[in-house]
Amino acid sequence: MASQSDHKAAIIDGKAIAQTIRNEIAEEVRHLWQKYGKVPGLAVVIVGTRKDSQSYVSMKRKACAEVGIKSVDIDLPENVSQDDLVAKVHELNATSDVHGILVQLPLPNHINEEKVLSEISIEKDVDGFHPLNVGKLAMKGREPLFLPCTPKARHSSYGCLELLSRSGISIKGKKAVVVGRSNIVGLPVSLLLLKADATVTVVHSRTPDPESFIREADIIIAAAGQAMMIKGSWIKPGAAVIDVGTNAIDDPSRKSGYRLVGDVDFQEACKVAGWVTPVPGGVGPMTVAMLLKNTLDGAKHAIAQ
Amino acid sequence: MASQSDHKAAIIDGKAIAQTIRNEIAEEVRHLWQKYGKVPGLAVVIVGTRKDSQSYVSMKRKACAEVGIKSVDIDLPENVSQDDLVAKVHELNATSDVHGILVQLPLPNHINEEKVLSEISIEKDVDGFHPLNVGKLAMKGREPLFLPCTPKARHSSYGCLELLSRSGISIKGKKAVVVGRSNIVGLPVSLLLLKADATVTVVHSRTPDPESFIREADIIIAAAGQAMMIKGSWIKPGAAVIDVGTNAIDDPSRKSGYRLVGDVDFQEACKVAGWVTPVPGGVGPMTVAMLLKNTLDGAKHAIAQ
Repeated sequence: MASQSDHKAAIIDGKAIAQTIRNEIAEEVRHLWQKYGKVPGLAVVIVGTRKDSQSYVSMKRKACAEVGIKSVDIDLPENVSQDDLVAKVHELNATSDVHGILVQLPLPNHINEEKVLSEISIEKDVDGFHPLNVGKLAMKGREPLFLPCTPKARHSSYGCLELLSRSGISIKGKKAVVVGRSNIVGLPVSLLLLKADATVTVVHSRTPDPESFIREADIIIAAAGQAMMIKGSWIKPGAAVIDVGTNAIDDPSRKSGYRLVGDVDFQEACKVAGWVTPVPGGVGPMTVAMLLKNTLDGAKHAIAQ
Repeated sequence: MASQSDHKAAIIDGKAIAQTIRNEIAEEVRHLWQKYGKVPGLAVVIVGTRKDSQSYVSMKRKACAEVGIKSVDIDLPENVSQDDLVAKVHELNATSDVHGILVQLPLPNHINEEKVLSEISIEKDVDGFHPLNVGKLAMKGREPLFLPCTPKARHSSYGCLELLSRSGISIKGKKAVVVGRSNIVGLPVSLLLLKADATVTVVHSRTPDPESFIREADIIIAAAGQAMMIKGSWIKPGAAVIDVGTNAIDDPSRKSGYRLVGDVDFQEACKVAGWVTPVPGGVGPMTVAMLLKNTLDGAKHAIAQ
């Protein structure tokens, strides 16, 4: 048997898995085209010229093109009125070859985001405009027991589970520890794991001795937002480690002056864990893949009807 | 030091705690009357003559009377039309001395419960018509990540936490284990505990070795629906045990032929635990007390405006 220092965890290559999913989607899109003469359509709406939004949007549009999903590009000026934006959403709702509508957030201050999102028809709400969100909108001013997750969080929560299953890691009956209880990732992932029959513990900033829980875990989901807080010695040998954290730390050796690290000490984890996701290149790439998958699913539903 | 066989857990007397809460509510109602000349009003609507519904409703109305909440009794015949019931709800929405509206479920088959409940104005929705429920209604046909909890479950989930705090048991930083992952109790209680800063583990029917988790718990919430599944030997000495289970088991010595027991072996638990709730007389009595408290809170909000 190899000594611990020789051990090398299997690196879960999120980029490669996301690519596999995209290839599968492309295959299904071709199949739809052959059978029905139709392809999925995703309307990606952007208002204004924020650099970060433009970069996200162009990434999503490019991803659509790669798998054969028709991207319907709606670029509106910063000063578009809320009424005009809503009218555009209604028009897209009524367009039969648009199966998904995505409105890039944030919207300019003069526009009520919740109002606009609530106008997207349920069948085309590909960004996962979740029942929770709907509830919250409807009950504004009441504190919900759970806060809704953002579309991105929803995609990445499902992405975590997809990474596990695509790596052949079964969840049922396993001890899973989720580190972090944010409404953004920690809570939705823990509920998905619970639904998948794991025994789930959520540890967080008020847990006196987090490592005592983490050490017992077969599956660790790190979503604390603390750079490299999970040390190699906290990991049970052979455990599966999914690192959702993306933290910028100073790195004078880089031109940018920083680099991105996860919530797990990756180098140490590699020596102990059975599987580990890198940061970047782990959970991140899954987000757009899951968005494409939602669009495909919506289109399959609409086209096959 | 006493030997283990001498140990006696403190019995958390849900009936007494519920009575204390009711007394506090009565005091606040008096205060509202003195200051504003108004008392809270709760409309309790019942349709038809189901024996169980009538018994619940009369219990709630009596509880209102005892604390000085004005109970507005609406008794409608089994064959009332949905339109007439909705019209009644609208009338109650518009009645200023009604601060809460409770429609006893189930309604007859010819009436759409969700439709009727959705007509209750948010401000008067004293039964906790939760954002989650609203979301689910709005998104019918989509599977939500969490199912909504019933009003009763909501009241009893909050009841569990109230029992802990009223017994002087702090939650922050404690290890809590919730046994059962039902949308009805397990999930909402576990999320409330998490919000209260416990480290929470949810074990369930697919957990291979539930006792190994339960043995570590400072706080055990038993909500599995399995008669006396939690043995004394599973309980950490000194732990707080809240038993949400209500299971009928055969008992030939009773006239009824059965008796109610919880998910915990109460006799054994008494010898080990620090605190334990009896069944019946633990969580159960808290349900109506929390309903009254919601009504009071709604009234305070409306009257003090």
